Amino acid sequence: MDSQEIKDTILAMGAKARMAAHDLAVLDSGQKNDILRAMANGLREQSAAILEANTKDIAAGEENGLTSAMLDRLRLDDARLEAIAVGIEEVADLPDPVGEVMDEWTRPNDICIQQVRVPIGVIGIIYESRPNVTSDAAVLCLKSGNATILRGGSEAIHSNKAIAHALQSGGQSAGLPDSAIQLIPFTDRESVSVMSGMDQWLDVIIPRGGKGLIETVVSLARMPVIKHYDGICHTYIDKDADVEMAVAIADDAKTHKPGVCNAMETLLVHNQIANDFLPKIATVFTEKGVEMRGDSKALEILGDAAVVASDEDWDTEYLDLIVAIKVVSGMKEAIDHINTHSSRHSECIVTADSNRAESFITRVDSACVFHNASTRFSDGGEFGFGAEIGISTDKLHARGPMALRELTSYQYRIRGNGQIRSLHATT
Amino acid sequence: MDSQEIKDTILAMGAKARMAAHDLAVLDSGQKNDILRAMANGLREQSAAILEANTKDIAAGEENGLTSAMLDRLRLDDARLEAIAVGIEEVADLPDPVGEVMDEWTRPNDICIQQVRVPIGVIGIIYESRPNVTSDAAVLCLKSGNATILRGGSEAIHSNKAIAHALQSGGQSAGLPDSAIQLIPFTDRESVSVMSGMDQWLDVIIPRGGKGLIETVVSLARMPVIKHYDGICHTYIDKDADVEMAVAIADDAKTHKPGVCNAMETLLVHNQIANDFLPKIATVFTEKGVEMRGDSKALEILGDAAVVASDEDWDTEYLDLIVAIKVVSGMKEAIDHINTHSSRHSECIVTADSNRAESFITRVDSACVFHNASTRFSDGGEFGFGAEIGISTDKLHARGPMALRELTSYQYRIRGNGQIRSLHATT
Repeated sequence: MDSQEIKDTILAMGAKARMAAHDLAVLDSGQKNDILRAMANGLREQSAAILEANTKDIAAGEENGLTSAMLDRLRLDDARLEAIAVGIEEVADLPDPVGEVMDEWTRPNDICIQQVRVPIGVIGIIYESRPNVTSDAAVLCLKSGNATILRGGSEAIHSNKAIAHALQSGGQSAGLPDSAIQLIPFTDRESVSVMSGMDQWLDVIIPRGGKGLIETVVSLARMPVIKHYDGICHTYIDKDADVEMAVAIADDAKTHKPGVCNAMETLLVHNQIANDFLPKIATVFTEKGVEMRGDSKALEILGDAAVVASDEDWDTEYLDLIVAIKVVSGMKEAIDHINTHSSRHSECIVTADSNRAESFITRVDSACVFHNASTRFSDGGEFGFGAEIGISTDKLHARGPMALRELTSYQYRIRGNGQIRSLHATT
Repeated sequence: MDSQEIKDTILAMGAKARMAAHDLAVLDSGQKNDILRAMANGLREQSAAILEANTKDIAAGEENGLTSAMLDRLRLDDARLEAIAVGIEEVADLPDPVGEVMDEWTRPNDICIQQVRVPIGVIGIIYESRPNVTSDAAVLCLKSGNATILRGGSEAIHSNKAIAHALQSGGQSAGLPDSAIQLIPFTDRESVSVMSGMDQWLDVIIPRGGKGLIETVVSLARMPVIKHYDGICHTYIDKDADVEMAVAIADDAKTHKPGVCNAMETLLVHNQIANDFLPKIATVFTEKGVEMRGDSKALEILGDAAVVASDEDWDTEYLDLIVAIKVVSGMKEAIDHINTHSSRHSECIVTADSNRAESFITRVDSACVFHNASTRFSDGGEFGFGAEIGISTDKLHARGPMALRELTSYQYRIRGNGQIRSLHATT
């Protein structure tokens, strides 16, 4: 395929998605939920074809030397496919954000103004190897009334095509508008730049993947980008912390699932509690094989149990059993450290003093700030959102766990009885 | 100044703005309002210096052949300066959006989650010739707890510097943090690209000006851009409209203030009411000197009173006493026309049938949709917001009239009593 064909194909998909978005915007919740359940059944009915396509991707992946972790992310089987189908049915059961009246008031001239949630329109999703994203992203967007254009990674192209086909044909049997869910059927790199440039058709673009992918989209995109960058999350143990609670929270934040964005990377400890707290958490960390990298004050207490932290450590998302530890002279130093080094994702203060907790919370410039609870709760499911499309590290539109509501925009609906500004202005 | 100096200067301003933003985020409403009132007084006290600076800009503008309209936009006098100062005091009197609890709930594991409005952080504003924007933008951003970096047009550079100085020195007497309001003291074109690239310091950038400026910022910016594009606004007269009301609304939308973005550009008329309605509105428009450009069906009714519309007319923001008129075969054609040609700003349906009005409202993909009221009410002041920074034609973050609330982000504040995910997960 040459450049012009790639461009023409994707632009045509954009125009069709816009038409589909207009149809989707007026579907009621019952219709959308019927479509979602039919999509889940479509996946089940076409499971043989999907697994066969997946076998091709796995074979190609093995040939191209993908790591076993990458192959595992790529691999589908009956259980994983059933989990995807059940996930769709769970989304069908969630409340529909579209149509929710966010605010409503009447002006002195009797004009009534409503602010109502509406779909965003057309959402572009660019993702890497996991084929389940094809379903997860399309399904959340559909529930919130949006059309999607999906561009998955080359490793999963056969699986993605088979999944998209199953969703489309299943959904269409229940009234899914044509072109509501479209997968770009090729994976040329150029497709990313074409998508990033077509702001006449895409209302927002969401890159799901590594920093390199996000950076590429950010530098090319003309439309808004919702970014899900790293989580360099901090836990700060204040001087008045309950030490047992502090150990439990720091342990959970670091070791419960170290490879995820809401895991702790840096532990900050008030110097008045460091002598009590640090040896206790060190015992836990040593037992669990966590490498500790401390500043000079931490090393005075931890001795040989820790190694020295470099400047780089304070800005590193380890995603591993490694933790950076710093002893601070007070809460202000902790806050300044966080506001300088954090990725603004999730932070925690452990303290028995709720005034100090409030002071910390209002001064820390991150999406989620926890008092006496593990940063591992920074998650759409744990927040009660039912499903999430990711954790936004942006500050505009969506911040923190991003679910159905964050996939909507709003519209002002203004009702009058003949008011004109030349006669009825209020300002 | 060479490129490197420009870049270094602006990046240094960015770093200082970030520090100031942290200080601003914890000011309470009383402190911010005191600062705002002191800023208003600063303007009054330094009025002589501001007017002297403005004289230089006017002289340079005359020399450079600015039109009289442009010179008028640039010109300040005692009355205009006092209006700016009063405007600041009005913003001080508005409610503070920061700290508002948007949502609050408790999870089954007793974790309490609050969603609280917080400032965005650092806002970059790039604008053209009007020097009052220096104050308006800085003041709205300050009230909402944000630091600003302002980059005004070269025509107004002396006025802008004098106004910024007055705001800063007035505000500092009441505790305005250093670098909370910064004006880039030069107007090299390069400053726009440096600002657009520094996403480490600017959380959002707002271009206020013509399409060319917005396009430039959109193509360069790495951070979110809030755009205020054209208003190609439509009024649709449905078959069951009250004709007298329809004439009044169409007249107001077109002629009350034709040079603004919420004025009507295209009038759509149901064919069952066209014979009754069009001659009546034509009488008004002819009397007021409005040029009518009709499609073939409109011309059949309007005869010589109108000229023929070209394809281009349906996509034009006249900002003038010109209107495009199309007779449609039904509401669906009106909606399709709007969703194809509108700039998604503001549209209106005039009808006595509220079911048809609801159908129109939910199908039209624009920020503001009016039933039986003029699109001229699409305005922050008329919505009761007190002040506006513009009308967003974006769908993410802020849509439609954009005021203090739209200059905020939010933060999740999560309070527990020792919950850890390995023991207390709810999903």
